[in-house]
Amino acid sequence: MLEDLKQAVLEANLELPKRGLVTYTWGNVSGIDREKNLIVIKPSGVPYEKLKAEHLVVLDLDGNVVEGDLNPSSDTPTHLALYRSFKEVGGIVHTHSRWATVWAQSGRSIPVLGTTHADYFYGEIPCTRKMTPAEINGEYEKETGNVIIETFRYKNPMHVPGVLVNNHGPFTWGKDAHEAVHNAVVLEEVAMMAYNTLMLNPKADPIHQALLDRHFLRKHGANAYYGQK
Amino acid sequence: MLEDLKQAVLEANLELPKRGLVTYTWGNVSGIDREKNLIVIKPSGVPYEKLKAEHLVVLDLDGNVVEGDLNPSSDTPTHLALYRSFKEVGGIVHTHSRWATVWAQSGRSIPVLGTTHADYFYGEIPCTRKMTPAEINGEYEKETGNVIIETFRYKNPMHVPGVLVNNHGPFTWGKDAHEAVHNAVVLEEVAMMAYNTLMLNPKADPIHQALLDRHFLRKHGANAYYGQK
Amino acid sequence: MLEDLKQAVLEANLELPKRGLVTYTWGNVSGIDREKNLIVIKPSGVPYEKLKAEHLVVLDLDGNVVEGDLNPSSDTPTHLALYRSFKEVGGIVHTHSRWATVWAQSGRSIPVLGTTHADYFYGEIPCTRKMTPAEINGEYEKETGNVIIETFRYKNPMHVPGVLVNNHGPFTWGKDAHEAVHNAVVLEEVAMMAYNTLMLNPKADPIHQALLDRHFLRKHGANAYYGQK
Amino acid sequence: MLEDLKQAVLEANLELPKRGLVTYTWGNVSGIDREKNLIVIKPSGVPYEKLKAEHLVVLDLDGNVVEGDLNPSSDTPTHLALYRSFKEVGGIVHTHSRWATVWAQSGRSIPVLGTTHADYFYGEIPCTRKMTPAEINGEYEKETGNVIIETFRYKNPMHVPGVLVNNHGPFTWGKDAHEAVHNAVVLEEVAMMAYNTLMLNPKADPIHQALLDRHFLRKHGANAYYGQK
Repeated sequence: MLEDLKQAVLEANLELPKRGLVTYTWGNVSGIDREKNLIVIKPSGVPYEKLKAEHLVVLDLDGNVVEGDLNPSSDTPTHLALYRSFKEVGGIVHTHSRWATVWAQSGRSIPVLGTTHADYFYGEIPCTRKMTPAEINGEYEKETGNVIIETFRYKNPMHVPGVLVNNHGPFTWGKDAHEAVHNAVVLEEVAMMAYNTLMLNPKADPIHQALLDRHFLRKHGANAYYGQK
Repeated sequence: MLEDLKQAVLEANLELPKRGLVTYTWGNVSGIDREKNLIVIKPSGVPYEKLKAEHLVVLDLDGNVVEGDLNPSSDTPTHLALYRSFKEVGGIVHTHSRWATVWAQSGRSIPVLGTTHADYFYGEIPCTRKMTPAEINGEYEKETGNVIIETFRYKNPMHVPGVLVNNHGPFTWGKDAHEAVHNAVVLEEVAMMAYNTLMLNPKADPIHQALLDRHFLRKHGANAYYGQK
Repeated sequence: MLEDLKQAVLEANLELPKRGLVTYTWGNVSGIDREKNLIVIKPSGVPYEKLKAEHLVVLDLDGNVVEGDLNPSSDTPTHLALYRSFKEVGGIVHTHSRWATVWAQSGRSIPVLGTTHADYFYGEIPCTRKMTPAEINGEYEKETGNVIIETFRYKNPMHVPGVLVNNHGPFTWGKDAHEAVHNAVVLEEVAMMAYNTLMLNPKADPIHQALLDRHFLRKHGANAYYGQK
Repeated sequence: MLEDLKQAVLEANLELPKRGLVTYTWGNVSGIDREKNLIVIKPSGVPYEKLKAEHLVVLDLDGNVVEGDLNPSSDTPTHLALYRSFKEVGGIVHTHSRWATVWAQSGRSIPVLGTTHADYFYGEIPCTRKMTPAEINGEYEKETGNVIIETFRYKNPMHVPGVLVNNHGPFTWGKDAHEAVHNAVVLEEVAMMAYNTLMLNPKADPIHQALLDRHFLRKHGANAYYGQK
């Protein structure tokens, strides 16, 4: 069942420790089959070095387990909320990668300070508001999804494929699990460079809108001219 | 004698350089057999690349060597004091890992700035008071244990499995040597991220008590729901 | 055609990920044959692990593709502008290496704070002015070259073999592609150390002119005495 | 001739890139035979990956080459000055390792902020005064040695086995080449941690003299009790 998707989600999960984005089991990747409305996600607390395709859990969009013997990631309700709301998203990643988590813990959005950022994120990478005690004490992981969705009320998630959950860490996404991991790697690089830029020059301004447009649209959309056809 | 414990303590010691927590011989791990009241600890100054199970030293809780030809770690009296006082502790680690040592040298406790911290430490990671000249000139390593115990007078060491010894470096512990090393790795990550969070936002507040409860209790205690059964 | 140059440019490109200067495809190296007035450059968006000599693109100095099936790097017009203007340059590198990019994003030139810098760069490593919307909306990559050339109006590019493009990242060069990569590595080291020097001592002064002369001329020019004959 | 010393100096040199202390050829190690008054040193500008024992250069204490076809390190006169003045030193290392160089560029001595420092350096690690134009324009490398010797007028170089040359980088030493490299590694760790300690707590005080005594004398001198007999 969904063997290709499982393989893709497995490979995307294994990319996280390889890229230095996770310590122990602090991360998870999922992918969705939009025709069947089924998602594949990492099981909770399983070490990456032991992870196999058969361990992955298949769920429907209401969170019912359709296949798999293990508990899905404890963050599954967050993934489900995002898939239900962000219709173009095909893969989602959560990590506690160091520099992105530093920004999340600081409660600050990452401003667009350079073209590396602009090549992938069409505007600042937002940090959510803090969650309320009622949200935390309620369906916490689902509410985490809701606060992300609220943050993107006026943003296109395909233009800004990531977020910082306040006091917690980053989620990124993309058209599939592979691209979601790619964006997680980029976010970490951008977060490191933005932090140090502001240390060196606390008055550094965001880049001009023309430069943001040029770089994002060089890589995305109908007039993109980066890479091969 | 205690072959399983020796093997576990050996593996835990070897995990330290593998995880980048020690330079040269700056670290040591011990484990205890609570039925026999015997501890197993790394010998002093032996390079990790040459360390074998037969080099480990077995001592009783009064510090008498029961087995082993080498001198035990010079920090042994600190380990013994902690085992005598913290009855649930099964393994102890000492390192000079970089970021935890930076906090120890700064004389500052690490506040709970995010959920990574809350997943493992149920409150701030305390820094001890400075030791007095009398303590330093006396039974120094034993007094190091005593100042840690004093710091935990009103804390449960199983809820906050680590400490920063002022001007020195971290000790961590757990139900066994393996978990103690796990907590040493987590402490280093948390210390790095907390440091940079405060650089980016010096006014960053500790997280809400509800979020601390949610994350710690998601992974610990009767209602934990992280991982597999 | 140009097989030796292609091999040299290939090796120089592969050195970038090996030295930790690039993430994904964020970098490119070119080399020039000054007799034939032809340049060889990395194709756009091709992963380094798949890059072969036959993928490299050959162009004349007006940007006409002379050989190669793939699109050249999107930064090709910047390389061409520099080769046309800096007649002694034989190789050019562009990366988004972390510390150099931090300085570029900060809009600050790197002052000469130590002898490591002086060994390779005979004066500060300049940051360009910000580009205007007209330049960004026009022939952007060519204008990037022009703003670099403007920055070097009164500088010898062979004495200061690198630049920070404001809000973007570094370009370096040398007598060939290999030396250009060497200078990219040095720039990254120098940028890291200069950043941290100013954090530790915001009033750190540039080194004395005598020390700059001694170190640069120890390695360059007629009276150099570093290395072997 | 001096085959054992050559082998030891070769191994000590190769340890530098392995420990991440040098980029390209930015470092050199020498050793001395105190009976014959001959030193063995790395040749200038030879890449570490190609370095063999037969490339090493043998000189007497006046700098006359006794054996070897290659030019000795351009820093040789600094090594010679130190060997002539510091009679117990058996090996010397020079690098541009990152964190130590940051302190050197900042013109600041490293205060004793923790026990890691105290285990190896019995007091602050001094930064030399800036060299004068006359010294720089004269016998520069010999004068570099002289300014180090001046800095140690009232210090025992065997108690503080390293120095920061202002605007330049570190030199370390020891009873032999191996120990000198060991001290170079320790210096880099100590420099990193001291820097970040002062960032986190600009008012961090040096440790108490009693703690400095306890840690240094635990590892050095007649009453040392660290390690094995």
